[in-house]
Amino acid sequence: MRSISILGATGSVGASTLDLIAREQDAWRVVALTANGNAAELARLALQFRPEIAVLADETRLPELRELLTGTGIETAGGEAALIEAAARPADLTLAAIVGCAGLAPVMAAIEQGGTVALANKEALVSAGEVLTAAVAKYGATLLPVDSEHNAIFQCLAGNQISQVRKITLTASGGPFRTWSAAQLAAATPAQAVKHPNWDMGAKISVDSATMFNKGLELIEAFHLFPVGLERLSIVVHPQSVVHSMVEYRDGSTLAQLGPSDMRVPIASCLAWPRRMDTPCEPLDLAAMGTLTFEHPDEDRFPATRLARQAAEAGGAIPAVLNAANEVAVAAFLAGRLGFTRIADHVEATLSCYAPAAPSSLAEVLEVDREARSRARELMENA
Amino acid sequence: MRSISILGATGSVGASTLDLIAREQDAWRVVALTANGNAAELARLALQFRPEIAVLADETRLPELRELLTGTGIETAGGEAALIEAAARPADLTLAAIVGCAGLAPVMAAIEQGGTVALANKEALVSAGEVLTAAVAKYGATLLPVDSEHNAIFQCLAGNQISQVRKITLTASGGPFRTWSAAQLAAATPAQAVKHPNWDMGAKISVDSATMFNKGLELIEAFHLFPVGLERLSIVVHPQSVVHSMVEYRDGSTLAQLGPSDMRVPIASCLAWPRRMDTPCEPLDLAAMGTLTFEHPDEDRFPATRLARQAAEAGGAIPAVLNAANEVAVAAFLAGRLGFTRIADHVEATLSCYAPAAPSSLAEVLEVDREARSRARELMENA
Repeated sequence: MRSISILGATGSVGASTLDLIAREQDAWRVVALTANGNAAELARLALQFRPEIAVLADETRLPELRELLTGTGIETAGGEAALIEAAARPADLTLAAIVGCAGLAPVMAAIEQGGTVALANKEALVSAGEVLTAAVAKYGATLLPVDSEHNAIFQCLAGNQISQVRKITLTASGGPFRTWSAAQLAAATPAQAVKHPNWDMGAKISVDSATMFNKGLELIEAFHLFPVGLERLSIVVHPQSVVHSMVEYRDGSTLAQLGPSDMRVPIASCLAWPRRMDTPCEPLDLAAMGTLTFEHPDEDRFPATRLARQAAEAGGAIPAVLNAANEVAVAAFLAGRLGFTRIADHVEATLSCYAPAAPSSLAEVLEVDREARSRARELMENA
Repeated sequence: MRSISILGATGSVGASTLDLIAREQDAWRVVALTANGNAAELARLALQFRPEIAVLADETRLPELRELLTGTGIETAGGEAALIEAAARPADLTLAAIVGCAGLAPVMAAIEQGGTVALANKEALVSAGEVLTAAVAKYGATLLPVDSEHNAIFQCLAGNQISQVRKITLTASGGPFRTWSAAQLAAATPAQAVKHPNWDMGAKISVDSATMFNKGLELIEAFHLFPVGLERLSIVVHPQSVVHSMVEYRDGSTLAQLGPSDMRVPIASCLAWPRRMDTPCEPLDLAAMGTLTFEHPDEDRFPATRLARQAAEAGGAIPAVLNAANEVAVAAFLAGRLGFTRIADHVEATLSCYAPAAPSSLAEVLEVDREARSRARELMENA
């Protein structure tokens, strides 16, 4: 029997995780389930999985949760401090799936326990990469990457030494505009951008997939997770999204992880690590698929990966600025206030006018994030 | 500094191995180099790699070797007993690359030392699979598969447990006749059969690739190397030969090993195992390749894999009979005495009229092999 806390239980990664845990519920003891504000769904999950504690980040919704869980013996709490306290409770595994910068402090609390943290929060490694990896080293924690690409790389490194790696290649679907011309891209609409070919995702991440900022952010994450140096990290466009990523060793052997576009596969890999567990996913049938294709990314039409690489190289606060500027630009694009190709322009412009010193704490990361958003908004208003 | 013996040093696997060792010769001490009858080449290699002993299987060529190595301090010997004695000398790694049944006794001698044996001899696992794997278990030896497919599987199992495997898939190029109709196959000539699309190989193995018996023999080898059960072993045709094989785990993750069609990659993986070493092979460039394709094998046109699967299932002496009958049939095909599609017919006919009891020793395996060849030849003459 292993214990688990799920931070962000009502989101899509949380739901996939609980779907897997429900299939072998006797094997797990749930310590904490947390959500942002969906009291009804959190209560439903708490009744099913019987955690020690259920926490809502939005304290105003706590009365509703309390009422729904009255008499169950399940603790309830609300607010950021309660979230952090819940994340700090001992658990064999913490699945960190809170979206955005709100996830940073709870992730850090889990890391400070020195346990195993399955990380599904992008901001943690993009914006706070150096602060976070320093904490992982200091507290002897283990990070398991949940994102399908990073999880693939993690699997391809099993039984091998990272010092023997010649190249790590992230695969990218290329998004819905992969074959579009520059002129078509300039006229792309939000409705067109949110239709992702392979994965069912939210609007923000769908736009990131269309601009390739998603892959850029993943490049920064990979840079922190797998210390092989930026020059050994590459990206290949693979529209079928069957190969999730690859690791090439110095002898010329490349190991690749393949699988369905179903987050339950990488999540299961984290839940059972270093063993495996069953998932309800269909076996891979390459013969039925027939063809896998690969192409070089085009950084002229999709400059996001170039910007991300430059940000990773600069290090310090710069990736956090890139991430914040991108969020502001994507929100403006989705609101119809910014053209599609202007997203990358806007990120680049923000980066060129705001370059704060490297943050040395989570508080400083959050300050950089706030200030970068404010600068990015200002820039847009003055454009 | 590690010690190595190379059995079959003048063949193509031996040459590739020595090419790699020459690149880091200070790291290796060569114990034994052996060859069949090429005294001049063995002497040249001995002068370059300074083994303790150089052995020729063909004793009649020993005087030539002796003369060439006079005054070097390198021991020389000839004949089967000397070959076995050399294979039994302690070495950190034995690369077993003697072709055919002549390789069985030296492989067994190396296994009986309980060391690590990198196995490039197909017959060892096809004809003597049960006898050999029993010896590996008894003497605590470690088998590293050199064949690109089995080496790929071995790499995909690193850091994982074989009990967690759902499926192992061997890739097959499909050979030069992959797209030929049954009528075209019936008229295929030896010259057409020996042109392999991706690998530069000898005539026998090229014909085996064309008939798919090569993949059938590999299926039998995989059955012994990776005890997941025959029903978990599958074959997919992949004409580009970039993916060398795959392992799917119960969670839906598939790990694949990819690389160039260069035997130095799997050999290097064995030489450096569990680490890695440099090879001069080009990095993988999937974007330059563009497309990888996969299709189901067609066992109507290419019945070899079906016959091999049945032979593996029957076990005991049956795979040895299949292997012997195939060798006889291929020789007849290459000599222009048997049609291409008759190769599989002839193997099937031999299997249906000769089913000896399971051999319990290497001597009995060799007896089955001799008798099967004799029966196969008889059948052909009486056809």
